[in-house]
Amino acid sequence: MNVFIIGIGLIGGSFAKDIKRLHPESKIYGIDTDKDHLQQALDLKLIDFMSAYEELEKADMVLVSIPVDASVTELPKILELVNDDCVVFDGGSTKNLICKALEDHHKRRNFLACHPIAGTEFSGPSAAIEHLYEGKTNIICEVEKTAFKLQERALELFREMGMRIRYMNPEAHDKHIAYVSHLSHISSFMLGKTVIEKEKNERDIFDMAGSGFESTVRLAKSSPAMWTPIFEQNKENVIETLEEYIANLEAFKELLLRQDYEGIYKEMNDTNKIKEILDGIPLTKK
Amino acid sequence: MNVFIIGIGLIGGSFAKDIKRLHPESKIYGIDTDKDHLQQALDLKLIDFMSAYEELEKADMVLVSIPVDASVTELPKILELVNDDCVVFDGGSTKNLICKALEDHHKRRNFLACHPIAGTEFSGPSAAIEHLYEGKTNIICEVEKTAFKLQERALELFREMGMRIRYMNPEAHDKHIAYVSHLSHISSFMLGKTVIEKEKNERDIFDMAGSGFESTVRLAKSSPAMWTPIFEQNKENVIETLEEYIANLEAFKELLLRQDYEGIYKEMNDTNKIKEILDGIPLTKK
Repeated sequence: MNVFIIGIGLIGGSFAKDIKRLHPESKIYGIDTDKDHLQQALDLKLIDFMSAYEELEKADMVLVSIPVDASVTELPKILELVNDDCVVFDGGSTKNLICKALEDHHKRRNFLACHPIAGTEFSGPSAAIEHLYEGKTNIICEVEKTAFKLQERALELFREMGMRIRYMNPEAHDKHIAYVSHLSHISSFMLGKTVIEKEKNERDIFDMAGSGFESTVRLAKSSPAMWTPIFEQNKENVIETLEEYIANLEAFKELLLRQDYEGIYKEMNDTNKIKEILDGIPLTKK
Repeated sequence: MNVFIIGIGLIGGSFAKDIKRLHPESKIYGIDTDKDHLQQALDLKLIDFMSAYEELEKADMVLVSIPVDASVTELPKILELVNDDCVVFDGGSTKNLICKALEDHHKRRNFLACHPIAGTEFSGPSAAIEHLYEGKTNIICEVEKTAFKLQERALELFREMGMRIRYMNPEAHDKHIAYVSHLSHISSFMLGKTVIEKEKNERDIFDMAGSGFESTVRLAKSSPAMWTPIFEQNKENVIETLEEYIANLEAFKELLLRQDYEGIYKEMNDTNKIKEILDGIPLTKK
């Protein structure tokens, strides 16, 4: 099996590791606009060969794991270049615009719209880890638009990698993911910003911050190059979640100003039920 | 050494475990208004004996690890009951009101105001873990007000437990900790609330939430009974941090509304330097 990975960072590189482990006979070709990353991926043995679009015709499977704005422009070209028996799937954190961009493409049946919900706050080929996707959810949109045989090839791999599959339409995906992923990133970035601005003396943060702070601002280490186009593509939903989040913070501040400590207790107590919800979320091994 | 632990939950219980490990000959007495917790602490061998205030006179060391509002009312009574050669220290997340409440106490020299910055989102005796404090910072306020010999006894234990000591005045402690701990808890609780409100179908959260969400809302599992009085005692500082946080979120929303994606990239890129700061924070082993 010839597998092409376009964008060989955390997401693509972790796929490469699992594919090589599960299918040692497969040949993995890497394509990346960042030549250093490509060399690094070869050195790390994530890929067997550095490649380019010209070779895409020999691909049996293509994973496109590049920023979501680049996916919108590159996916139509990639589909054009692959053979009729090749499955192309992406890993982007937004699905609506990508599905729309491809809806009239004459090779739409070669494409499977995916969002494997996995990752860490690190990026680049060196961040790739085995088993990243084990036990994680992979959301697939518009599955009915993909050729049956090609769906099967991709789904078989996802199954072997230990992913749980959920089917959803692109609009619903983008709406829900704004709450459970995109908003978390903004809250984390802005928390980091608030603390950095105030604590000019970084020594104080270092000394006083515990693991609670570490956990809450972990996502503020995420890649701006990856996240800017996600926020752009999911702007409407993200603004809505942000407004609700700000309103909840304002309400909490009001309770403090009114010294309504029963109210504050109740807010926290009601939210404690997040425990049961979180107990079902598989943690990233690292 | 007779050690009394008043409030035998996560903080007190984890101290008990380390003290027993480091000083197997010591006798650990537990006092708690929650009789179930006390029984559990005995069953878990966190304590050797269930005890009560009447026995405090035989204590060599007392740790008060109860909600901060209870500390303000209980610490004066506890100090009254201990002998002159006993050191009493607390573990509260606020220091200003506690130090003020004790400033004129005739046994002020028996008290050491401490904030060991360690914990998990769990609570109660069963949450106690060994080595919780290893590599963590313990902030000590107004050290000069504690008798030298008694300071020494407590500091020797903290050293054996692997804690780093930092000295700070209570006002500075409460101001800084609002940023690096109290605000994180509010941001996490309100994030949890925002998502729970929207996602009535919990199955959707469960399926779509990745480890990023889990990390960001972890603190929303924290105990309301412990956190309500912390927010009450540190109200002014907490409101200030909350206002700055909300202003930063509003500014981010404005950038989205104006479609200023360069601005959004810059916000995230500037905040990425939190990486270097966080690299210095010891993580809780669990």
